[in-house]
Amino acid sequence: MLWPVITIGLDVGGTKVLGVAVDSTAPATVLAEERVPTPEGGAGLVDTLLEVATAVSTAAGPAARVGVGVPGLVDTSGRLHMGPHLRKVHELPLAELLAQRCGLPVVVDNDANCHALAEWAGGAASGADEALVVTLGTGIGAGIIAGGRLVRGANGFAGEPGHMVVDPNGPPCPCGKRGCWERFASGSGLARLAREAAEADRLDAAVDLAGGDVDEVRGEHVTAAARAGDPESHAVLDEFAGWIALGLANLVNILDPAVVVIGGGLVDAADLLLPLVRAQLAERVMAGDRRPPVLLVPAALGERAGAIGAAVLALTDP
Amino acid sequence: MLWPVITIGLDVGGTKVLGVAVDSTAPATVLAEERVPTPEGGAGLVDTLLEVATAVSTAAGPAARVGVGVPGLVDTSGRLHMGPHLRKVHELPLAELLAQRCGLPVVVDNDANCHALAEWAGGAASGADEALVVTLGTGIGAGIIAGGRLVRGANGFAGEPGHMVVDPNGPPCPCGKRGCWERFASGSGLARLAREAAEADRLDAAVDLAGGDVDEVRGEHVTAAARAGDPESHAVLDEFAGWIALGLANLVNILDPAVVVIGGGLVDAADLLLPLVRAQLAERVMAGDRRPPVLLVPAALGERAGAIGAAVLALTDP
Repeated sequence: MLWPVITIGLDVGGTKVLGVAVDSTAPATVLAEERVPTPEGGAGLVDTLLEVATAVSTAAGPAARVGVGVPGLVDTSGRLHMGPHLRKVHELPLAELLAQRCGLPVVVDNDANCHALAEWAGGAASGADEALVVTLGTGIGAGIIAGGRLVRGANGFAGEPGHMVVDPNGPPCPCGKRGCWERFASGSGLARLAREAAEADRLDAAVDLAGGDVDEVRGEHVTAAARAGDPESHAVLDEFAGWIALGLANLVNILDPAVVVIGGGLVDAADLLLPLVRAQLAERVMAGDRRPPVLLVPAALGERAGAIGAAVLALTDP
Repeated sequence: MLWPVITIGLDVGGTKVLGVAVDSTAPATVLAEERVPTPEGGAGLVDTLLEVATAVSTAAGPAARVGVGVPGLVDTSGRLHMGPHLRKVHELPLAELLAQRCGLPVVVDNDANCHALAEWAGGAASGADEALVVTLGTGIGAGIIAGGRLVRGANGFAGEPGHMVVDPNGPPCPCGKRGCWERFASGSGLARLAREAAEADRLDAAVDLAGGDVDEVRGEHVTAAARAGDPESHAVLDEFAGWIALGLANLVNILDPAVVVIGGGLVDAADLLLPLVRAQLAERVMAGDRRPPVLLVPAALGERAGAIGAAVLALTDP
C-alpha cells in the first residue's frame, strides 16, 4: 500500500459473522466492527457478508478492499469448496460473487490462514519472517508464514496439519484415516483423553465438576480441576500436552519457525498448557541443543483475529 | 543475474566430493566437473573443497560464486554444526573459511536443500512455484519450495521431515524419539521390513537372492525379486510404499505442493515403487477428490543434482 486505505475483514464463524474495518497502516487497530449470526447452514452467505461489510464501511468510511476468512476448503480463486459448518454451501465462488455485489476487490482464504496473517501483522508473531500459527479448537487449523509470506500452496490448501497422521493405529478420523493429529491434540482430543481417564477412575475431581457423570466430562472440567490442584487432572493435561508437542515438533522439523503461536479455544488454558507443551517440545525438536528454543506463545488478538487477518489478507494479496 | 556468469557447485557426499561449473543461464548444463574422495571424517574439508573448485574453474573459466551442499546441520550463516559422515567436523564456519581461501562469495546449505534447488531450477520440478523434493536414501532429506523460493527456516534447519514422528510406538530412532518417518520410509526402513518378512518366512525368493541368509536380505534383493514377479516381495514393497505415502500425505496436507519429486538411492526402484506410492497417496491426501492429483515423479538430474543445486543456491542467494 502506498497510502493508508480502509480495508474490511470478514470472519465467518460457526455461530457469527464478525466484520471489522481497519486502517492499512495499523491493521490490528479496529476502526469499526459489526457482528450478525451466521446464516443456518450457510444459506444466503453472500447477502450476510454484504450486510456486515456495508455496516462497517458506513461506520468507518469508504473501504478499498475486502478480505474474507471462512472455515473450510478455499482455493486460490476464492472458491469455497465446502465448509464443515456450512452444509448448504458447495463449490461457492465466494470472492467473485461478493466482489460483484460490493464493487470492491475481494480475497477469500480459510480462517486459519487469516488468523496467522493477523498474528503476524500485529499480534504474537509480529516481525517474524518464519512463523507458524496453530489454532487448537474443536479441530486443528494452521497458517504458515515462510520468508515473510503466507504459504498458500499450489491449490490454496496448505496449512492442514490436523490431518497429519501421527499414529496409524490411532482412533478413526472422519477424514477416513486413523490417528490424525487432530484426534489427539484438539479440544475433541482432550475430551477423549478425559473420558478415557474418567472411565478408568483416574479423574475423580473433574468428574465431580461435571456433576458426577463420567459421560459429561469435558476439557474445561479437566482444566478447572487442574487449576484447583488436582494431580490426576494435571496428569491428563500433561498427556494432552505431549500430543500437542509431538505434532508441533514435526512441524518445527519441517518448517523451522522462529515462533509458534497457539490460538483457538484451547488458548483459554494457555497458562496451564503451554508450559507443559514447551517442556516436551524442547525434547522433541531435532538438534534442539544446536538452535535457540522455539518461542511458543499464545495468540494475542483474541476473537477478532480472524476478521483482522481477513483484512490483512486483502491488503497483502498481490 | 543480469548476465551469464560461471558458478561453481560443490557437493560433499559420504564417499566423494563432486564439483561442477555451470552457466547461470542454464544451471542444469554442466560445463566442467571434478570429483575427489571425501576426506576421512571430514578432516581438511576446506582444502578439499578449494582443490575441487580450483579444478573446475580452471577447466570452465573464471567463476563468480561458489555454492556448497553438505549433509548435516547448516545454519543460515553457512556454519556446519555437524554432519553424520563428518565426525571430525564440529561448528565449522565453512562459508566463511572457503570464501577467505577462494576470494569468492560462498553460500553453504544442506545437501537435501541443494537437491531440491537443482530439480526446481532444471529438473523434475522445473517451473513449479510449490514443490517438495524428498530424498529417500539411508535416511530421508527434503527441500521445500514455496512461492518460488526455498524454505530455509529461521535457523536454516527447515526441511527435515525424516524426524516427523508417524508412530509413537514405532522403532527407536538414533535421534532419541520413536517412530520417526525415517525409520519406515528410508532404505533402512525397507531393510527392516524385509528382515521382518524374511524371519517370518514370508520372503523366500529375496532370501534366495541374498544367498539363503536371512540376515543378509537387503532392499535390493526385495526389488530384484519383485521385478522377477515374486508376490511376497511385491507385498513387502507395497507395505513400504504405504509408509512412504503416509509421510508424503502429511507433507502434502501441510504444504500443498504441485509436484513431489523423489530422489536418493531408492529412485533406482522408482519404476516399481512410485506406482504403489501414488495409489496410496491419492487415498491419504485430505480432500483428494477436490484437487488435482499431486504429481509424484522421480528426480531427473541423477548424481550431479547436489552439485548443480549448490550452484543454483549460490545464484539465488540474495
